[in-house]
Amino acid sequence: MTTSTGSSQERRVHVPLVGRAYDILIGPGLITKAGGEISSRLKGRRAAIITDEHVAPLYLDMIMDSLQTDGIEAVSLTLPAGEKTKSFEHYMAVCDLILEARIESNDAVIALGGGVIGDLAGFAAGTVRRGVRFVQIPTSLLAQVDSSVGGKTGINTRHGKNLVGVFHQPDLVLADSSVLDTLSKREFRAGYAEVVKYGLIDKPDFFEWLEKNWQEVFAGGQARIEAIATSCQAKSDVVVEDEFENGRRALLNLGHTFGHALEAATEYDSKRLVHGEGVAIGTVLAHQFSSRLNLASPDGAKRVEAHLKAVGLPVSMHEIPGTLPPVETLMAAIAQDKKVKSGKLTFILTHGIGQSFVADNVAASEVESFLKEKHPG
Amino acid sequence: MTTSTGSSQERRVHVPLVGRAYDILIGPGLITKAGGEISSRLKGRRAAIITDEHVAPLYLDMIMDSLQTDGIEAVSLTLPAGEKTKSFEHYMAVCDLILEARIESNDAVIALGGGVIGDLAGFAAGTVRRGVRFVQIPTSLLAQVDSSVGGKTGINTRHGKNLVGVFHQPDLVLADSSVLDTLSKREFRAGYAEVVKYGLIDKPDFFEWLEKNWQEVFAGGQARIEAIATSCQAKSDVVVEDEFENGRRALLNLGHTFGHALEAATEYDSKRLVHGEGVAIGTVLAHQFSSRLNLASPDGAKRVEAHLKAVGLPVSMHEIPGTLPPVETLMAAIAQDKKVKSGKLTFILTHGIGQSFVADNVAASEVESFLKEKHPG
Repeated sequence: MTTSTGSSQERRVHVPLVGRAYDILIGPGLITKAGGEISSRLKGRRAAIITDEHVAPLYLDMIMDSLQTDGIEAVSLTLPAGEKTKSFEHYMAVCDLILEARIESNDAVIALGGGVIGDLAGFAAGTVRRGVRFVQIPTSLLAQVDSSVGGKTGINTRHGKNLVGVFHQPDLVLADSSVLDTLSKREFRAGYAEVVKYGLIDKPDFFEWLEKNWQEVFAGGQARIEAIATSCQAKSDVVVEDEFENGRRALLNLGHTFGHALEAATEYDSKRLVHGEGVAIGTVLAHQFSSRLNLASPDGAKRVEAHLKAVGLPVSMHEIPGTLPPVETLMAAIAQDKKVKSGKLTFILTHGIGQSFVADNVAASEVESFLKEKHPG
Repeated sequence: MTTSTGSSQERRVHVPLVGRAYDILIGPGLITKAGGEISSRLKGRRAAIITDEHVAPLYLDMIMDSLQTDGIEAVSLTLPAGEKTKSFEHYMAVCDLILEARIESNDAVIALGGGVIGDLAGFAAGTVRRGVRFVQIPTSLLAQVDSSVGGKTGINTRHGKNLVGVFHQPDLVLADSSVLDTLSKREFRAGYAEVVKYGLIDKPDFFEWLEKNWQEVFAGGQARIEAIATSCQAKSDVVVEDEFENGRRALLNLGHTFGHALEAATEYDSKRLVHGEGVAIGTVLAHQFSSRLNLASPDGAKRVEAHLKAVGLPVSMHEIPGTLPPVETLMAAIAQDKKVKSGKLTFILTHGIGQSFVADNVAASEVESFLKEKHPG
C-alpha cells in the first residue's frame, strides 16, 4: 500500500525489488526538493541531467539550484522533444555526456521529462560503466504512472519502437504532481488511459472510483495524487512479481497490442494519434474482442467505452482523423509486435472489469474478422 | 569441478548462476558440432553469427553447415578485425542485423571470434529486445579462458575501453581447443598470461602445475584442455560468487591496473604490446609492488617473473619496444581506470603465490615512487 510521508499531501510507493528497492514519491513541489531527496539516498556527488527543449525552460534551473544547494555538481543536456529523440545518435550523445561528466557508479543520471527522455536516459544509465545510478523525474502523467516505473528503457530503430534497450531500475522516482498543471488537456487525458488500465487489469474498485471521481483527478489536488499513487503501486506490484516479463507483467500490455498497431498505422503522427489515445481505443477493442469470444459479457466493454468517452478519449477507430490502412496492414503490425512468440498471437483479454488475463494462443483469423467489423474503411 | 563428458577428451564446466545456469564445453572439434549443441539447448530456430575477417575464412562455413544440419537458419556479419571494431558504429550495425534477421528472445546471437567480437556481439545480444540468447564460440586462448566467460560485454568510447556495456551471460560457450592450433605463438602466449593469473589469484597448486607442464599446454592435447577447463572453472567460481563485481570479482583484475596503463601508454598499438603482454608485465609488477610494501616475500615475485619469462612473455617495462611516456602519464592512466572510486586507488595485491587480495586504499605516492624505480626512461 501507499504510505503517508511528512507532508499531508505527499505519498510514497516503495518498490521492494531485492537488492534494488526504491521509492516513488508523489506530491506537489517535489522538483524543488530534488537535491535533498537525491543526496540523502545516493553516495555520489555528481549528476548528469537529460531533458528536452519543452521541459528545460520550465524546470531545469529549478532542479540545478536544488542540486547545487545540496552539494551535487550537475551538468545537463537538452535534446529535441519527441519520439525521434529515442535514436542511436542521441543515445551516443547521452553516453558521451555522462562519461565527459565523469559520472561513476554511485553518481546519478537524472531523466527530467516524459517517457522519451526517461527511456533514452535510462538506457544510457543502464549501460555506461555497465550501470550507474538513475533518477526519474517524470513530467507527464503518462511517465508518472507508467514509463518511469518498472525499469524498461530503450530506443527505437528502423525496425520498430523500443527494440534496443535494457532493464535498469531507477534508484528514485520523483513524481511532482504540480508539473501536470502545465500539460495540455489532450496530453493529460492520454496519460489517464494508463491510469484506467490498472483498474481494468485487476482493480475493479479502482475503476469504479475513477468512474465517480475522474473530474477531481483532472482538476488536480489530492484525488490526482491518489490516482497516481494507486497506479504506481499497481505497476510496482506487477513488476516486483515479474521484473523481466516472463509472465504476469504482460498484463500491463492490456490495450497495447491493438494500440501499437494503430500507432503504426497512423505512422506515429501525434497530430492523429498519441500513445495514450491508441491505448484507449485498444482497451475498448480488447474488451469488445473478449466479449465476442464469449469470454466476458458485453456490459463490461460498454462501461469501459462509456468512461473513456466521458473523459474525452477516443474509443473507436472511426474517431482517428484521416484514412486508416486496411485490416491486413493492421494485422501485419500486430504480427511484428515483439510480444509475438514463434508465430502465435499473444493478447491480453478479460473476463470482465478488473479480470484481465494473458491469452497466448489467439488465432489470427479471429482477430482479423473482428477488426474487419470494427474498421471504418 | 570440471566433469568428463562422452568424449574422452572433452571437458564441461557448469556455471550455476540461478535461473541462468550455462555450460562451457572445452574440447577438440566443437565448432563442427555447434548446431547440435545449440539446438539441444535453445528453443529458437534462428541465429545471427557475428565474426571478423580473420576468423570468417577459417570457420564460418563450418558453423553455418553445422547449424543448417540441425535446423537452425542463420545469417552472418563479418566485421573488420581489431579493437577499433568495438565502437558505437559497429554496435548499431550488429543490432540492425539481429533485428533484420528477426531474432526473437529464444533465438541466438553467436559470437565467433576473439574478445573483441565477443564483447561487441554480447552487448548487442544483451540489448536487442532487452536481451536475446547468446552463444560464445571463442577462437583465441584469451577469449576461451577469460572474456567469453562471466557476462561482461561492451564497447569502447573516446573516453576509454569498455565504458559502455551490460552484464549479459551467455547461454552456452563452445571453446574448441583445435582452433588454437592456428594462433600465432605470440597470441597464444598472450592468452596464457590470463591462465597463469588464475593460479596466482588463489590456486598455488595450479601455478605449480603450470610451471611443470607449460610446454605440454603450448603443444596442445589434453594438458591444454585441462588448463583451459581449470581457468574457466576458476573464473566461473568468482563470477557465481560476485556476478556484478561488488567485491571478490575484482580479483580477476590482478595485473590489469598496471597492464591497462601500459596499454594506454603504448596507444593500444598491438605491434608494441597486446593485452596479455600488458597483463604479464602488470602481474610481475603487482607481485613486486606487494613485496616492496612488505606484504609478500620477494621470492614469489621472482617465481612469477621466471615462469612468465620462460614461456616467452615480457616481464618488465624495459622489454616494450619504443619509448614509454613518463611515470606521470602512467599515473594519470591508472587514476582514470574505472576501478578507481572517489579518488582512492584500488589494486589487487598479494601475500604470495595464490594469495591475492583487493586493496582499496593504496596511496598514489607509493605507486608513483615504485613505478619510477621500474621505469626504463
